[in-house]
Amino acid sequence: MIKVGIIGATGYTGVELLRLLAQHPGVEIAAITSRGEAGTPVPDMFPSLRGRVDLKFESPATANLKACDLVFFATPNGIAMQQAPALLDAGVRVIDLAADFRIADIAEWEKWYGMKHVAPEWVTKAVYGLPEINRHGIREARLIANPGCYPTAVQLGLMPLLEAGLADPASLIADAKSGVSGAGRKAEIPTLFSEASDNFKAYGVLGHRHLPEIRQGLSRMAGAAVGLTFVPHLTPLIRGIHATLYARIKAGADFQALYEQRYANEPFVDVLPAKSHPDTRSVRASNFCRIAIHRPQDGDTLVILSVIDNLVKGAAGQAVQNMNIMFGRSETEGLWQLPVLP
Amino acid sequence: MIKVGIIGATGYTGVELLRLLAQHPGVEIAAITSRGEAGTPVPDMFPSLRGRVDLKFESPATANLKACDLVFFATPNGIAMQQAPALLDAGVRVIDLAADFRIADIAEWEKWYGMKHVAPEWVTKAVYGLPEINRHGIREARLIANPGCYPTAVQLGLMPLLEAGLADPASLIADAKSGVSGAGRKAEIPTLFSEASDNFKAYGVLGHRHLPEIRQGLSRMAGAAVGLTFVPHLTPLIRGIHATLYARIKAGADFQALYEQRYANEPFVDVLPAKSHPDTRSVRASNFCRIAIHRPQDGDTLVILSVIDNLVKGAAGQAVQNMNIMFGRSETEGLWQLPVLP
Amino acid sequence: MIKVGIIGATGYTGVELLRLLAQHPGVEIAAITSRGEAGTPVPDMFPSLRGRVDLKFESPATANLKACDLVFFATPNGIAMQQAPALLDAGVRVIDLAADFRIADIAEWEKWYGMKHVAPEWVTKAVYGLPEINRHGIREARLIANPGCYPTAVQLGLMPLLEAGLADPASLIADAKSGVSGAGRKAEIPTLFSEASDNFKAYGVLGHRHLPEIRQGLSRMAGAAVGLTFVPHLTPLIRGIHATLYARIKAGADFQALYEQRYANEPFVDVLPAKSHPDTRSVRASNFCRIAIHRPQDGDTLVILSVIDNLVKGAAGQAVQNMNIMFGRSETEGLWQLPVLP
Amino acid sequence: MIKVGIIGATGYTGVELLRLLAQHPGVEIAAITSRGEAGTPVPDMFPSLRGRVDLKFESPATANLKACDLVFFATPNGIAMQQAPALLDAGVRVIDLAADFRIADIAEWEKWYGMKHVAPEWVTKAVYGLPEINRHGIREARLIANPGCYPTAVQLGLMPLLEAGLADPASLIADAKSGVSGAGRKAEIPTLFSEASDNFKAYGVLGHRHLPEIRQGLSRMAGAAVGLTFVPHLTPLIRGIHATLYARIKAGADFQALYEQRYANEPFVDVLPAKSHPDTRSVRASNFCRIAIHRPQDGDTLVILSVIDNLVKGAAGQAVQNMNIMFGRSETEGLWQLPVLP
Repeated sequence: MIKVGIIGATGYTGVELLRLLAQHPGVEIAAITSRGEAGTPVPDMFPSLRGRVDLKFESPATANLKACDLVFFATPNGIAMQQAPALLDAGVRVIDLAADFRIADIAEWEKWYGMKHVAPEWVTKAVYGLPEINRHGIREARLIANPGCYPTAVQLGLMPLLEAGLADPASLIADAKSGVSGAGRKAEIPTLFSEASDNFKAYGVLGHRHLPEIRQGLSRMAGAAVGLTFVPHLTPLIRGIHATLYARIKAGADFQALYEQRYANEPFVDVLPAKSHPDTRSVRASNFCRIAIHRPQDGDTLVILSVIDNLVKGAAGQAVQNMNIMFGRSETEGLWQLPVLP
Repeated sequence: MIKVGIIGATGYTGVELLRLLAQHPGVEIAAITSRGEAGTPVPDMFPSLRGRVDLKFESPATANLKACDLVFFATPNGIAMQQAPALLDAGVRVIDLAADFRIADIAEWEKWYGMKHVAPEWVTKAVYGLPEINRHGIREARLIANPGCYPTAVQLGLMPLLEAGLADPASLIADAKSGVSGAGRKAEIPTLFSEASDNFKAYGVLGHRHLPEIRQGLSRMAGAAVGLTFVPHLTPLIRGIHATLYARIKAGADFQALYEQRYANEPFVDVLPAKSHPDTRSVRASNFCRIAIHRPQDGDTLVILSVIDNLVKGAAGQAVQNMNIMFGRSETEGLWQLPVLP
Repeated sequence: MIKVGIIGATGYTGVELLRLLAQHPGVEIAAITSRGEAGTPVPDMFPSLRGRVDLKFESPATANLKACDLVFFATPNGIAMQQAPALLDAGVRVIDLAADFRIADIAEWEKWYGMKHVAPEWVTKAVYGLPEINRHGIREARLIANPGCYPTAVQLGLMPLLEAGLADPASLIADAKSGVSGAGRKAEIPTLFSEASDNFKAYGVLGHRHLPEIRQGLSRMAGAAVGLTFVPHLTPLIRGIHATLYARIKAGADFQALYEQRYANEPFVDVLPAKSHPDTRSVRASNFCRIAIHRPQDGDTLVILSVIDNLVKGAAGQAVQNMNIMFGRSETEGLWQLPVLP
Repeated sequence: MIKVGIIGATGYTGVELLRLLAQHPGVEIAAITSRGEAGTPVPDMFPSLRGRVDLKFESPATANLKACDLVFFATPNGIAMQQAPALLDAGVRVIDLAADFRIADIAEWEKWYGMKHVAPEWVTKAVYGLPEINRHGIREARLIANPGCYPTAVQLGLMPLLEAGLADPASLIADAKSGVSGAGRKAEIPTLFSEASDNFKAYGVLGHRHLPEIRQGLSRMAGAAVGLTFVPHLTPLIRGIHATLYARIKAGADFQALYEQRYANEPFVDVLPAKSHPDTRSVRASNFCRIAIHRPQDGDTLVILSVIDNLVKGAAGQAVQNMNIMFGRSETEGLWQLPVLP
């Protein structure tokens, strides 16, 4: 049994982690902390867990996290960089679901996140937890930087193409649409039902924090700096990301076969048959990413459609997948639930 | 392994059965039939099942259903009464998720369903598949009449009260609200997104087919004919039923304790603490029923709130629960997934 | 031209008032105040008003509200009782869209609203602004207590029956469902999209602030104290209230004709043909109330369905209707927009 | 008074036309036809029109359409080309809201619409009804080809840029998202609430019928053939289109000023301040198009966001705007309703 702790489990990423871990046969949840909710039984906040998660939220100060094998940080940005090093030094392995360790370039990180990084040495040691590209590194990692939701959908959608050098890396476009849970469980007016329902909008067109993370990942795949226009949108669904990706191809190729081969052994990436259109609900509440490739009018623009559940493959599910790899479990353990449709 | 067949698995009840059975460790799905979709691979219709259900829909004519231990009918009303008897005679056990065997009074059934019953002898032999009241009968049953969605939510909500004889049975009110999936996967204008979204309405106030089924169940509990006003409503959610039940009490009692004791050993009925308001998402995609009891202003009207997922405890999940009981499996096997929240 | 001011126009009731008043041919909006948004151009907050409302939010301290003919309070409860008296004394007429002047019994009001009333003398002078029952009083009123949203839907639904003395007033039930905009434009977790979407729940079963208001109105109609069980629910639509009302009848009658006659001259109350089921979208963004009457199985329980748009007939539209009456305009002026469907 | 007829008013475009025309002070609705619903009172189908539209649907065979000044075709593609010529020959002016007269290249039209064109001579005479580019032609036109919904949003979004010759016309991308009402009021499974709600998907990536129409319009603006990748998506809202447009710029310019100047005199096109993100609800139920222009990271890709209500500026509202121009009325008459928010 892997003994795990969760720091900051009162948000959507946290409750999704709890849902997955409570059903995982190889995990014991030892501690769940929350500064604001210390003492509250977890099911009082999340009745969906009644009878299955009997713990209370503990104060971070008193929780015995150092006795864990693994601690998940489901906290806002800027917390893990402060608290993870002590745990790491004590031999606890850590998966940070926030952004603290995702960007190798510290100055770039500080620019986008608006704060000073207090643990830059751990950024170097952290492994970016996208199993489809870093599986070996993840196995041995002490600290995992779990990818962002948009970055997961976009990187998986462009990986085969960029690795094969078949697209012009200078003019990539990622038009991404996210369900509202991506904004988190925070009391804010723009994500109220009466604001976000029956409505659609872009946001952050001039710059979104996931841009440098995506650009870093794509550049590694392409072996060169990429030019990327990234436009996120808010769409009225609870869960789901749909990335519509546009790439100018350099030469013809059997792109369908390229993708199928690249992902042939990936348990959670599903390349759909030609001419398909994945819908977000086909991955709802599951750890799958489904991808379709189109070349309209046989032109030089390739259109790739990539869908994930932002809370699962885009956050908590990917974290559990990383945990499975780190601890030598079957990679799909506890993640084999089928999507909920309808 | 229980070898099962599913007749008519192209609707929402059918795909939900497939989702649950494909994850059930003790089941082998041997055949899935559909008159209209014979030859189509199941995942072509339901991409959520890709890689996990490899069967094709078969023609009912050619499928070897008699080799099954159990056959589920996920068909429209009126099909099972025609096709089930031959299977039953061949020794196959049957669970009908439609209404053919639910109403003991054949004339009443024929009035509400507008057709002649062709297998009345099996109505007598059928067991009404509500485990919380008929567990023993279900164990030995050859034929299960799986309850309707509204009837499940309403009966579980009123059962302790009526069994205890604490309410006036003459003036019960069930104000029930259902998600749109309850209307099935049929191409009809009233359930289009642009009609049913951002909208709320009652329907069938003068008479809904679930009324006689509920009345029969409540009368058995009360030991006398009940007077029931049943008003169903369509609400813009995919899954979920919320029944708001009003009963005039005859005398004071500790109703909270009454409910908690009645359901203390029921794995899928959860009585919430006093003053709670269950929301439908707290049972989404799970087999739970959650119930809260209120007595406003200490008056003589008791208000009971009962929520289920209409496709799970209200259909496919309850069918699997019945199957587990019939075949001596743990009652919760394959049904232990946590609700999906958010 | 009626010169109007609006205090506190940053909520949903406020923006709806602005939408209606900006299109009203007989109104000049002179001032819009907001403590928190003073200086902000109104369309910066509500882009839907761009090019049509050119005002800025003003500080309540500096706005020249005493120069107005009429001031609307679209503020939280407890504000109007403090600020309205000075305006009233200066000869300005006032419509309060909050609850400060709705309840005649001061002690009752203080119990439900949890504060001391500071202007009880104005409660006596205020006219309850439900035109269908108080049209004459409204005409001369200096101060209007604009009804709550639930109270409007419930009172219009029961008025003909209670006035005619045909129902047992001791056991009325109002099972009401509201869209989420009824909770206001406040940053709170329970009304986030990811909480309230694809979800349904009751709330306030043990006591909701609209209960005493409804009870007071129904008692006036019945000429005697009524017993009322009121259960509000939150349903995932932006606008709309659907009240399902249950009354035990004392004797048979042509209830359809009763309702049609009672409302024959009411421009905004529409009694549907027998056997109808009004949907909330049939009144969306309009000032109509639509009502249908059912007597299931010819029993002794009458079921009345009543729908309104909570922001229009349930708030801002009714306020404009009251304004029209107060200033001798045609009652439908500026309120004649058709519902938006789909 | 303009005497108008509507052919085929049982769809969403039809009911929206009725909503707008019934409120238009200069219009008399003389006849509404429907093959399938002849004899049905219009409000029986659309209760939102009760008390305001007293007509019945008439059979097309008996309706006296030749007595009208103007006939709207709100019919499926392929109907107007058959029936409009006889009306036109009788001197009736016609606005076709379907696609029959939109594409100048008959062979191209026949390829995309899969039928033979039976009135090619009228294609030449028809005027494409986008007032922002064809106002003069519309004034005198006998036959208007009312633009499609996607084509309206995309063309208005790219017009200033292409007219000014500032973008590379060879590599335009239109990533467009539509509410579900765009699919019409047809009983089909993919647009059921339980399919389209809480879901997001692309469709028609390899070729959508609006592609040739958009390409034709953009080519006229650019003065040269354009290369366009057009990807439509279905998003869970009732009304609204959000087009996210990507263009590679040839040179720097003050794009904000360019757009503001181009649309300075357009009553229904609103260029938002720099850095804005229009949401679809800011135009809900209104005839506005709102546009924002972004140049992320000062790169060579311009991002233009353009929103409309697909049923208003994308269909019925634009048809009324065209009618106003054709008959010398104020262009905004009957179209001046403010958007409904929230």
